[in-house]
Amino acid sequence: MRSYRKELWFEIQTRRGFRNITSDVEDCLRKSGIKEGLVLVNAMHITASVFVNDDEPGLHRDFERWLEELAPHLPLSSYQHNRTGEDNGDAHIKRTLMGREVVVAVTAGALDFGPWEQIFYGEFDGQRAKRVLVKIIGE
Amino acid sequence: MRSYRKELWFEIQTRRGFRNITSDVEDCLRKSGIKEGLVLVNAMHITASVFVNDDEPGLHRDFERWLEELAPHLPLSSYQHNRTGEDNGDAHIKRTLMGREVVVAVTAGALDFGPWEQIFYGEFDGQRAKRVLVKIIGE
Amino acid sequence: MRSYRKELWFEIQTRRGFRNITSDVEDCLRKSGIKEGLVLVNAMHITASVFVNDDEPGLHRDFERWLEELAPHLPLSSYQHNRTGEDNGDAHIKRTLMGREVVVAVTAGALDFGPWEQIFYGEFDGQRAKRVLVKIIGE
Repeated sequence: MRSYRKELWFEIQTRRGFRNITSDVEDCLRKSGIKEGLVLVNAMHITASVFVNDDEPGLHRDFERWLEELAPHLPLSSYQHNRTGEDNGDAHIKRTLMGREVVVAVTAGALDFGPWEQIFYGEFDGQRAKRVLVKIIGE
Repeated sequence: MRSYRKELWFEIQTRRGFRNITSDVEDCLRKSGIKEGLVLVNAMHITASVFVNDDEPGLHRDFERWLEELAPHLPLSSYQHNRTGEDNGDAHIKRTLMGREVVVAVTAGALDFGPWEQIFYGEFDGQRAKRVLVKIIGE
Repeated sequence: MRSYRKELWFEIQTRRGFRNITSDVEDCLRKSGIKEGLVLVNAMHITASVFVNDDEPGLHRDFERWLEELAPHLPLSSYQHNRTGEDNGDAHIKRTLMGREVVVAVTAGALDFGPWEQIFYGEFDGQRAKRVLVKIIGE
Protein backbone atom coordinates (compact mmCIF):
# COMPACT_ATOMS: atom_id res chain seq x y z
CA MET A 1 0.00 0.00 0.00
CA ARG A 2 1.25 3.47 -0.87
CA SER A 3 0.15 6.75 0.65
CA TYR A 4 0.50 10.41 -0.25
CA ARG A 5 -0.24 13.55 1.77
CA LYS A 6 -0.45 17.20 0.81
CA GLU A 7 -1.85 20.35 2.39
CA LEU A 8 -3.46 22.86 0.02
CA TRP A 9 -3.52 26.46 1.32
CA PHE A 10 -6.19 28.97 0.31
CA GLU A 11 -7.00 32.54 1.27
CA ILE A 12 -10.50 33.53 0.20
CA GLN A 13 -10.71 37.34 0.08
CA THR A 14 -14.30 37.52 1.35
CA ARG A 15 -16.03 36.10 4.43
CA ARG A 16 -17.70 33.41 2.34
CA GLY A 17 -16.88 31.88 -1.03
CA PHE A 18 -16.47 28.70 -3.05
CA ARG A 19 -13.40 27.60 -4.99
CA ASN A 20 -13.09 24.72 -7.44
CA ILE A 21 -10.11 22.64 -6.24
CA THR A 22 -10.55 19.65 -8.58
CA SER A 23 -7.36 20.36 -10.54
CA ASP A 24 -5.38 20.76 -7.28
CA VAL A 25 -6.53 17.30 -6.20
CA GLU A 26 -5.75 15.89 -9.65
CA ASP A 27 -2.21 17.30 -9.35
CA CYS A 28 -1.81 15.48 -6.02
CA LEU A 29 -3.05 12.25 -7.57
CA ARG A 30 -0.57 12.54 -10.45
CA LYS A 31 2.34 13.15 -8.07
CA SER A 32 1.29 10.24 -5.83
CA GLY A 33 1.62 7.73 -8.67
CA ILE A 34 -1.34 5.86 -7.15
CA LYS A 35 -3.57 4.14 -9.73
CA GLU A 36 -6.18 2.34 -7.59
CA GLY A 37 -7.41 3.48 -4.20
CA LEU A 38 -9.22 6.25 -2.36
CA VAL A 39 -8.62 10.00 -1.98
CA LEU A 40 -9.78 11.79 1.16
CA VAL A 41 -10.10 15.57 0.81
CA ASN A 42 -11.07 17.42 4.00
CA ALA A 43 -11.10 20.93 5.39
CA MET A 44 -8.62 21.16 8.28
CA HIS A 45 -10.70 24.02 9.75
CA ILE A 46 -14.09 23.70 11.39
CA THR A 47 -15.59 26.73 9.63
CA ALA A 48 -14.89 25.47 6.10
CA SER A 49 -16.14 22.63 3.90
CA VAL A 50 -15.07 20.35 1.12
CA PHE A 51 -17.93 19.11 -1.06
CA VAL A 52 -18.78 17.81 -4.54
CA ASN A 53 -21.24 19.62 -6.75
CA ASP A 54 -21.60 21.50 -10.04
CA ASP A 55 -19.34 24.37 -11.17
CA GLU A 56 -22.21 26.75 -11.98
CA PRO A 57 -22.17 30.30 -10.52
CA GLY A 58 -25.97 30.55 -10.20
CA LEU A 59 -26.00 27.38 -8.09
CA HIS A 60 -23.28 28.81 -5.85
CA ARG A 61 -25.41 31.93 -5.29
CA ASP A 62 -28.33 29.62 -4.44
CA PHE A 63 -26.16 27.82 -1.86
CA GLU A 64 -25.08 31.20 -0.40
CA ARG A 65 -28.68 32.45 -0.07
CA TRP A 66 -29.92 29.14 1.35
CA LEU A 67 -27.12 28.88 3.93
CA GLU A 68 -27.82 32.46 5.08
CA GLU A 69 -31.50 31.57 5.49
CA LEU A 70 -30.78 28.45 7.55
CA ALA A 71 -27.92 29.88 9.65
CA PRO A 72 -27.74 33.69 9.27
CA HIS A 73 -24.49 35.45 10.17
CA LEU A 74 -26.39 38.26 12.00
CA PRO A 75 -27.30 39.03 14.68
CA LEU A 76 -24.05 37.79 16.23
CA SER A 77 -25.90 37.49 19.55
CA SER A 78 -28.03 34.62 18.24
CA TYR A 79 -25.04 32.25 18.65
CA GLN A 80 -23.77 31.41 22.13
CA HIS A 81 -20.45 30.50 20.49
CA ASN A 82 -19.95 34.20 19.71
CA ARG A 83 -19.84 34.97 23.47
CA THR A 84 -16.30 33.55 23.38
CA GLY A 85 -15.29 36.62 21.35
CA GLU A 86 -15.73 34.89 17.98
CA ASP A 87 -18.10 36.12 15.26
CA ASN A 88 -18.27 32.83 13.36
CA GLY A 89 -21.04 30.85 15.11
CA ASP A 90 -22.92 30.72 11.81
CA ALA A 91 -19.85 29.41 9.97
CA HIS A 92 -19.67 26.25 12.12
CA ILE A 93 -23.27 25.46 11.19
CA LYS A 94 -22.87 26.35 7.49
CA ARG A 95 -19.87 24.03 7.30
CA THR A 96 -21.94 21.26 8.91
CA LEU A 97 -24.61 21.64 6.20
CA MET A 98 -22.06 21.53 3.35
CA GLY A 99 -19.84 18.80 4.87
CA ARG A 100 -16.26 18.44 6.13
CA GLU A 101 -14.90 15.96 3.62
CA VAL A 102 -15.29 13.96 0.46
CA VAL A 103 -13.93 10.52 -0.34
CA VAL A 104 -13.38 9.91 -4.05
CA ALA A 105 -12.48 6.65 -5.78
CA VAL A 106 -9.23 6.47 -7.77
CA THR A 107 -9.49 4.23 -10.84
CA ALA A 108 -6.78 3.86 -13.51
CA GLY A 109 -4.94 6.84 -12.03
CA ALA A 110 -7.86 9.29 -12.28
CA LEU A 111 -10.61 10.66 -10.01
CA ASP A 112 -13.54 8.34 -10.73
CA PHE A 113 -16.22 10.97 -11.29
CA GLY A 114 -19.60 11.29 -12.97
CA PRO A 115 -19.91 13.92 -15.72
CA TRP A 116 -20.55 16.99 -13.55
CA GLU A 117 -18.78 16.13 -10.30
CA GLN A 118 -16.26 18.78 -9.20
CA ILE A 119 -14.62 19.25 -5.78
CA PHE A 120 -15.09 22.59 -4.02
CA TYR A 121 -13.60 24.32 -1.03
CA GLY A 122 -16.35 26.21 0.81
CA GLU A 123 -15.21 29.08 3.02
CA PHE A 124 -17.54 30.50 5.70
CA ASP A 125 -15.05 32.53 7.77
CA GLY A 126 -12.44 33.72 5.32
CA GLN A 127 -9.97 36.54 4.77
CA ARG A 128 -7.13 34.43 6.19
CA ALA A 129 -5.00 31.50 5.01
CA LYS A 130 -6.63 28.12 5.65
CA ARG A 131 -5.83 24.53 4.74
CA VAL A 132 -7.31 21.47 3.02
CA LEU A 133 -5.77 18.01 3.50
CA VAL A 134 -5.43 15.60 0.59
CA LYS A 135 -4.60 12.03 1.64
CA ILE A 136 -4.40 9.25 -0.95
CA ILE A 137 -4.00 5.55 -0.20
CA GLY A 138 -3.78 2.70 -2.68
CA GLU A 139 -1.38 1.14 -5.15
CA MET B 1 -4.21 -4.44 -1.70
CA ARG B 2 -7.12 -5.44 -3.94
CA SER B 3 -9.73 -3.16 -5.46
CA TYR B 4 -13.11 -3.62 -7.09
CA ARG B 5 -15.29 -1.17 -9.03
CA LYS B 6 -18.86 -1.34 -10.23
CA GLU B 7 -21.44 1.14 -11.51
CA LEU B 8 -25.04 0.54 -10.45
CA TRP B 9 -27.66 2.06 -12.76
CA PHE B 10 -31.11 3.16 -11.59
CA GLU B 11 -34.07 4.84 -13.21
CA ILE B 12 -36.51 6.18 -10.62
CA GLN B 13 -39.91 6.68 -12.28
CA THR B 14 -40.78 9.83 -10.31
CA ARG B 15 -38.95 13.11 -9.77
CA ARG B 16 -38.02 12.09 -6.25
CA GLY B 17 -37.70 8.73 -4.53
CA PHE B 18 -35.61 6.46 -2.33
CA ARG B 19 -34.38 2.96 -3.14
CA ASN B 20 -32.73 0.45 -0.82
CA ILE B 21 -29.48 -0.60 -2.54
CA THR B 22 -27.96 -2.61 0.33
CA SER B 23 -28.25 -5.95 -1.45
CA ASP B 24 -26.69 -4.47 -4.62
CA VAL B 25 -23.68 -3.36 -2.57
CA GLU B 26 -23.52 -6.77 -0.85
CA ASP B 27 -23.43 -8.42 -4.30
CA CYS B 28 -20.46 -6.22 -5.22
CA LEU B 29 -18.69 -7.14 -2.00
CA ARG B 30 -19.21 -10.87 -2.64
CA LYS B 31 -17.86 -10.58 -6.19
CA SER B 32 -14.84 -8.58 -5.02
CA GLY B 33 -13.67 -11.36 -2.71
CA ILE B 34 -12.46 -8.63 -0.30
CA LYS B 35 -12.72 -9.61 3.38
CA GLU B 36 -11.21 -6.60 5.21
CA GLY B 37 -11.31 -3.01 3.98
CA LEU B 38 -13.60 -0.12 3.08
CA VAL B 39 -16.47 0.31 0.62
CA LEU B 40 -17.18 3.74 -0.86
CA VAL B 41 -20.70 4.12 -2.32
CA ASN B 42 -21.39 7.48 -3.99
CA ALA B 43 -23.88 9.06 -6.34
CA MET B 44 -22.14 9.94 -9.63
CA HIS B 45 -24.73 12.69 -10.19
CA ILE B 46 -24.97 15.95 -8.29
CA THR B 47 -28.75 15.82 -7.87
CA ALA B 48 -28.79 12.43 -6.13
CA SER B 49 -27.61 11.04 -2.79
CA VAL B 50 -26.36 7.89 -1.15
CA PHE B 51 -27.08 7.67 2.57
CA VAL B 52 -27.58 5.23 5.43
CA ASN B 53 -30.81 5.13 7.39
CA ASP B 54 -33.81 2.96 8.23
CA ASP B 55 -35.97 1.11 5.67
CA GLU B 56 -39.29 2.44 6.98
CA PRO B 57 -41.77 4.04 4.54
CA GLY B 58 -43.12 6.57 7.07
CA LEU B 59 -39.60 7.85 7.68
CA HIS B 60 -39.07 8.23 3.94
CA ARG B 61 -42.24 10.33 3.70
CA ASP B 62 -40.90 12.43 6.60
CA PHE B 63 -37.64 12.98 4.69
CA GLU B 64 -39.63 13.96 1.56
CA ARG B 65 -41.78 16.50 3.44
CA TRP B 66 -38.80 17.92 5.34
CA LEU B 67 -36.67 18.30 2.21
CA GLU B 68 -39.52 20.10 0.42
CA GLU B 69 -39.84 22.49 3.37
CA LEU B 70 -36.11 23.30 3.43
CA ALA B 71 -35.59 23.47 -0.33
CA PRO B 72 -38.93 23.56 -2.19
CA HIS B 73 -39.03 22.60 -5.86
CA LEU B 74 -41.37 25.52 -6.71
CA PRO B 75 -41.31 28.32 -7.65
CA LEU B 76 -38.55 27.49 -10.14
CA SER B 77 -37.65 31.19 -10.17
CA SER B 78 -36.38 31.01 -6.58
CA TYR B 79 -33.19 29.28 -7.81
CA GLN B 80 -30.70 31.21 -9.94
CA HIS B 81 -29.45 27.83 -11.17
CA ASN B 82 -32.75 27.40 -13.00
CA ARG B 83 -31.94 30.43 -15.22
CA THR B 84 -29.57 28.09 -17.09
CA GLY B 85 -32.66 26.28 -18.40
CA GLU B 86 -32.61 23.61 -15.67
CA ASP B 87 -35.49 22.99 -13.25
CA ASN B 88 -33.45 21.16 -10.62
CA GLY B 89 -32.01 23.92 -8.42
CA ASP B 90 -33.78 22.38 -5.44
CA ALA B 91 -32.35 18.93 -6.22
CA HIS B 92 -28.75 20.15 -5.79
CA ILE B 93 -29.64 21.41 -2.31
CA LYS B 94 -31.67 18.35 -1.33
CA ARG B 95 -28.75 16.12 -2.30
CA THR B 96 -26.44 18.27 -0.16
CA LEU B 97 -28.71 17.72 2.86
CA MET B 98 -28.85 13.94 2.37
CA GLY B 99 -25.19 13.52 1.37
CA ARG B 100 -23.19 12.35 -1.67
CA GLU B 101 -21.57 9.23 -0.29
CA VAL B 102 -21.17 6.69 2.47
CA VAL B 103 -18.06 4.80 3.52
CA VAL B 104 -18.78 1.44 5.13
CA ALA B 105 -16.34 -0.89 6.88
CA VAL B 106 -15.85 -4.41 5.50
CA THR B 107 -15.20 -7.01 8.21
CA ALA B 108 -15.01 -10.77 7.62
CA GLY B 109 -16.39 -10.30 4.11
CA ALA B 110 -19.57 -8.46 5.17
CA LEU B 111 -20.79 -4.87 5.47
CA ASP B 112 -20.04 -4.02 9.11
CA PHE B 113 -23.42 -2.53 10.04
CA GLY B 114 -25.46 -1.86 13.15
CA PRO B 115 -28.89 -3.54 13.36
CA TRP B 116 -30.92 -1.03 11.32
CA GLU B 117 -28.35 0.40 8.92
CA GLN B 118 -29.36 0.16 5.27
CA ILE B 119 -27.90 1.98 2.24
CA PHE B 120 -30.26 4.09 0.13
CA TYR B 121 -30.09 5.83 -3.21
CA GLY B 122 -31.92 9.16 -2.97
CA GLU B 123 -33.18 10.63 -6.24
CA PHE B 124 -34.16 14.31 -6.47
CA ASP B 125 -34.27 14.77 -10.27
CA GLY B 126 -35.34 11.43 -11.64
CA GLN B 127 -37.15 9.90 -14.61
CA ARG B 128 -33.85 9.10 -16.31
CA ALA B 129 -31.06 6.53 -15.88
CA LYS B 130 -28.46 7.56 -13.32
CA ARG B 131 -25.46 5.90 -11.69
CA VAL B 132 -24.00 4.99 -8.30
CA LEU B 133 -20.31 4.04 -7.96
CA VAL B 134 -19.25 1.20 -5.67
CA LYS B 135 -15.49 1.11 -5.00
CA ILE B 136 -14.03 -1.44 -2.59
CA ILE B 137 -10.43 -1.54 -1.40
CA GLY B 138 -8.86 -4.04 0.98
CA GLU B 139 -7.64 -7.59 1.14
CA MET C 1 -2.46 -3.90 4.37
CA ARG C 2 -3.45 -4.10 8.04
CA SER C 3 -6.86 -3.49 9.53
CA TYR C 4 -8.22 -2.87 13.01
CA ARG C 5 -11.80 -2.84 14.31
CA LYS C 6 -13.31 -1.73 17.58
CA GLU C 7 -16.79 -0.90 18.84
CA LEU C 8 -17.07 1.97 21.31
CA TRP C 9 -20.14 1.85 23.56
CA PHE C 10 -21.79 4.96 25.01
CA GLU C 11 -24.86 5.64 27.11
CA ILE C 12 -25.83 9.30 27.06
CA GLN C 13 -28.06 10.02 30.07
CA THR C 14 -30.29 12.52 28.25
CA ARG C 15 -32.31 12.30 25.04
CA ARG C 16 -29.76 14.43 23.21
CA GLY C 17 -26.10 15.19 23.86
CA PHE C 18 -22.59 15.44 22.41
CA ARG C 19 -19.50 13.62 23.61
CA ASN C 20 -15.89 14.18 22.55
CA ILE C 21 -14.55 10.77 21.48
CA THR C 22 -11.21 11.92 20.03
CA SER C 23 -9.13 10.23 22.71
CA ASP C 24 -11.09 6.97 22.30
CA VAL C 25 -10.25 6.98 18.58
CA GLU C 26 -6.61 7.82 19.35
CA ASP C 27 -6.47 4.81 21.70
CA CYS C 28 -7.72 2.60 18.87
CA LEU C 29 -5.10 4.02 16.52
CA ARG C 30 -2.32 3.35 19.03
CA LYS C 31 -3.47 -0.24 19.53
CA SER C 32 -3.75 -0.82 15.78
CA GLY C 33 -0.07 -0.02 15.21
CA ILE C 34 -1.09 1.53 11.86
CA LYS C 35 1.08 4.50 10.83
CA GLU C 36 -0.32 5.46 7.40
CA GLY C 37 -3.89 5.00 6.27
CA LEU C 38 -7.48 6.00 6.95
CA VAL C 39 -9.77 5.77 9.98
CA LEU C 40 -13.52 5.44 9.52
CA VAL C 41 -15.59 6.38 12.58
CA ASN C 42 -19.35 5.87 12.20
CA ALA C 43 -22.44 5.66 14.33
CA MET C 44 -23.89 2.12 14.14
CA HIS C 45 -27.34 3.54 14.95
CA ILE C 46 -29.49 5.63 12.65
CA THR C 47 -30.49 8.17 15.31
CA ALA C 48 -26.92 9.15 16.20
CA SER C 49 -24.05 10.95 14.48
CA VAL C 50 -20.28 11.12 14.34
CA PHE C 51 -18.91 14.49 13.27
CA VAL C 52 -15.87 16.77 13.51
CA ASN C 53 -16.13 20.22 15.03
CA ASP C 54 -14.93 22.39 17.91
CA ASP C 55 -15.05 21.36 21.61
CA GLU C 56 -16.80 24.53 22.79
CA PRO C 57 -19.95 24.23 24.97
CA GLY C 58 -21.60 27.37 23.55
CA LEU C 59 -21.29 25.95 20.04
CA HIS C 60 -22.88 22.71 21.19
CA ARG C 61 -25.84 24.65 22.60
CA ASP C 62 -26.07 26.44 19.23
CA PHE C 63 -26.20 23.07 17.44
CA GLU C 64 -28.90 21.86 19.87
CA ARG C 65 -31.08 24.94 19.34
CA TRP C 66 -30.59 24.90 15.57
CA LEU C 67 -31.41 21.19 15.25
CA GLU C 68 -34.59 21.66 17.29
CA GLU C 69 -35.62 24.52 14.97
CA LEU C 70 -35.04 22.48 11.82
CA ALA C 71 -36.48 19.18 13.09
CA PRO C 72 -38.37 19.68 16.37
CA HIS C 73 -39.00 16.68 18.61
CA LEU C 74 -42.61 17.75 19.28
CA PRO C 75 -45.36 17.32 18.31
CA LEU C 76 -44.68 13.62 17.83
CA SER C 77 -47.57 13.52 15.35
CA SER C 78 -45.63 15.63 12.84
CA TYR C 79 -43.54 12.56 11.92
CA GLN C 80 -45.17 9.63 10.12
CA HIS C 81 -42.33 7.48 11.42
CA ASN C 82 -43.77 7.90 14.91
CA ARG C 83 -46.94 6.04 13.85
CA THR C 84 -44.85 2.85 14.10
CA GLY C 85 -44.82 3.40 17.88
CA GLU C 86 -41.48 5.20 17.91
CA ASP C 87 -40.98 8.74 19.23
CA ASN C 88 -37.71 9.42 17.41
CA GLY C 89 -38.76 10.68 13.97
CA ASP C 90 -36.87 13.92 14.65
CA ALA C 91 -33.73 12.00 15.67
CA HIS C 92 -33.41 10.39 12.20
CA ILE C 93 -33.45 13.85 10.63
CA LYS C 94 -31.12 15.44 13.19
CA ARG C 95 -28.61 12.66 12.58
CA THR C 96 -28.87 13.29 8.82
CA LEU C 97 -27.99 16.96 9.38
CA MET C 98 -24.97 16.16 11.58
CA GLY C 99 -23.75 13.18 9.54
CA ARG C 100 -23.26 9.41 10.06
CA GLU C 101 -19.50 9.18 9.76
CA VAL C 102 -16.12 10.82 9.45
CA VAL C 103 -13.06 9.59 7.60
CA VAL C 104 -9.78 10.88 9.04
CA ALA C 105 -6.28 10.53 7.59
CA VAL C 106 -3.63 8.69 9.61
CA THR C 107 -0.14 10.14 9.14
CA ALA C 108 2.95 9.08 11.12
CA GLY C 109 0.73 7.14 13.54
CA ALA C 110 -1.52 10.10 14.48
CA LEU C 111 -4.91 11.52 13.47
CA ASP C 112 -3.97 14.10 10.82
CA PHE C 113 -6.04 17.01 12.14
CA GLY C 114 -6.10 20.79 11.87
CA PRO C 115 -5.73 22.76 15.13
CA TRP C 116 -9.35 22.64 16.34
CA GLU C 117 -10.63 19.40 14.84
CA GLN C 118 -12.16 17.02 17.40
CA ILE C 119 -14.41 13.98 16.83
CA PHE C 120 -17.83 13.94 18.50
CA TYR C 121 -20.54 11.41 19.07
CA GLY C 122 -23.94 13.09 18.69
CA GLU C 123 -26.87 11.40 20.37
CA PHE C 124 -30.46 12.27 19.38
CA ASP C 125 -32.34 9.36 21.01
CA GLY C 126 -30.35 8.46 24.09
CA GLN C 127 -30.79 6.96 27.54
CA ARG C 128 -29.65 3.55 26.29
CA ALA C 129 -26.34 1.94 25.32
CA LYS C 130 -25.36 2.60 21.69
CA ARG C 131 -22.31 1.92 19.54
CA VAL C 132 -19.75 3.63 17.34
CA LEU C 133 -17.55 1.63 14.95
CA VAL C 134 -13.87 2.47 14.50
CA LYS C 135 -12.27 0.79 11.48
CA ILE C 136 -8.68 1.55 10.54
CA ILE C 137 -6.92 0.35 7.39
CA GLY C 138 -3.35 1.02 6.36
CA GLU C 139 0.22 -0.02 7.16
